[in-house]
Amino acid sequence: MGSMALQKLFSAGTKIVAVGRNYVAHAKELGNAVPKEPVLFLKPTSSYLGVGGTIEIPHPLESLHHEVELAVVIGKKARDVPEASAMDYVAGYALALDMTAREIQASAKSAGLPWTVAKGQDTFTPIGSVLPKESVPDPDNLELWLKVDGEMRQKGSTRDMIFKIPFLISHISSIMTLLEGDVILTGTPPGVGPVKAGQKITAGITDLVEVYFSVGKRPKPKSS
Amino acid sequence: MGSMALQKLFSAGTKIVAVGRNYVAHAKELGNAVPKEPVLFLKPTSSYLGVGGTIEIPHPLESLHHEVELAVVIGKKARDVPEASAMDYVAGYALALDMTAREIQASAKSAGLPWTVAKGQDTFTPIGSVLPKESVPDPDNLELWLKVDGEMRQKGSTRDMIFKIPFLISHISSIMTLLEGDVILTGTPPGVGPVKAGQKITAGITDLVEVYFSVGKRPKPKSS
Ligand SMILES: [Mg+2]
Ligand SMILES: [Mg+2]
Ligand SMILES: [Mg+2]
Repeated sequence: MGSMALQKLFSAGTKIVAVGRNYVAHAKELGNAVPKEPVLFLKPTSSYLGVGGTIEIPHPLESLHHEVELAVVIGKKARDVPEASAMDYVAGYALALDMTAREIQASAKSAGLPWTVAKGQDTFTPIGSVLPKESVPDPDNLELWLKVDGEMRQKGSTRDMIFKIPFLISHISSIMTLLEGDVILTGTPPGVGPVKAGQKITAGITDLVEVYFSVGKRPKPKSS
Repeated sequence: MGSMALQKLFSAGTKIVAVGRNYVAHAKELGNAVPKEPVLFLKPTSSYLGVGGTIEIPHPLESLHHEVELAVVIGKKARDVPEASAMDYVAGYALALDMTAREIQASAKSAGLPWTVAKGQDTFTPIGSVLPKESVPDPDNLELWLKVDGEMRQKGSTRDMIFKIPFLISHISSIMTLLEGDVILTGTPPGVGPVKAGQKITAGITDLVEVYFSVGKRPKPKSS
């Protein structure tokens, strides 16, 4: 796939399938059990935010949690894909943040309700450009990191993912068809925590990519 | 919008925003509290099933629950839309089913986990063609019905929705941008229950539209 075509994948895609609790150390830091099968939830593509953009904290929240994650970008339709051929369906990778309104998620969890409002708001999926698959020879051995105002908050290796990429593609594609441009967010290593308006986030995959985002308050709507 | 353009909306869309517990009588039949604000969750567009298609029950489940719902089809980008102008963003309506693996949803609810696997599988959103807005003068007064093998199971009026369409569009658009072709499923009236492989579902909006679907077991994948 050419470089232009690769960068158009996000606008072609129709869903973001996110995996929760895919690193033991992160599951534990939030007091959750380590899952026996992947915890899956959807984020809408309307939540994407390009590099350099401003993550918006909706009123009346004071902060959002950052979760740095490896994004797997699907290159072609995948349904009931066996693990052995799962990597054929990958077009590339990206560095993404799964921004989370943790207070809203906590209330949803205790009420047995979906996480959509906690995870799915506009700007809640900051994401870098697509790295072609060929430029990432070993996706199971990438160091992910995230800094807030220059201070390291998260650092971890995809080596520590409980469910690896081929398993995730196979498993998810047995539940729902993955289409070209769809994205899997593979979970976050430990160190999640709040960011507030005025702070800057930098994050990256060591030796491969670095991205930056600002954090602000969501502006009040013009009308109404 | 022309008739051809209308029918293409589902393939243009990138999300289905579903509303839970939007009819008092349905919230009560599942033992849930009547919500103070809309319960929202996402279904992927890969879950659509066209009229006459077969709803697939995934192994090892024996049944899925039917939920007949009015679908609102969005005609143009909507962000922070006030209630007063919300109907300007509607392109049309459709009759949809929000098929639900109730056992999976029940476990997810008690574990504080998302409903994605219970609601988002392929064929879990059977949907009829788009009825142009002009053909539905009073969307707040439609009778929805659903029969299994000719026996009436659900009948209710959109009059009994707790949160009405303009409120839903305004509220959802304050959380996430709605785009052309996105769909809002507005919740189900009482009478939900199981359907099994071999049964037939007919459903409709009285005086406007009737749709039919078969129910089968999900075939085993060919490979793997
Ligand atoms: Mg996450
Ligand atoms: Mg979607
Ligand atoms: Mg429903």
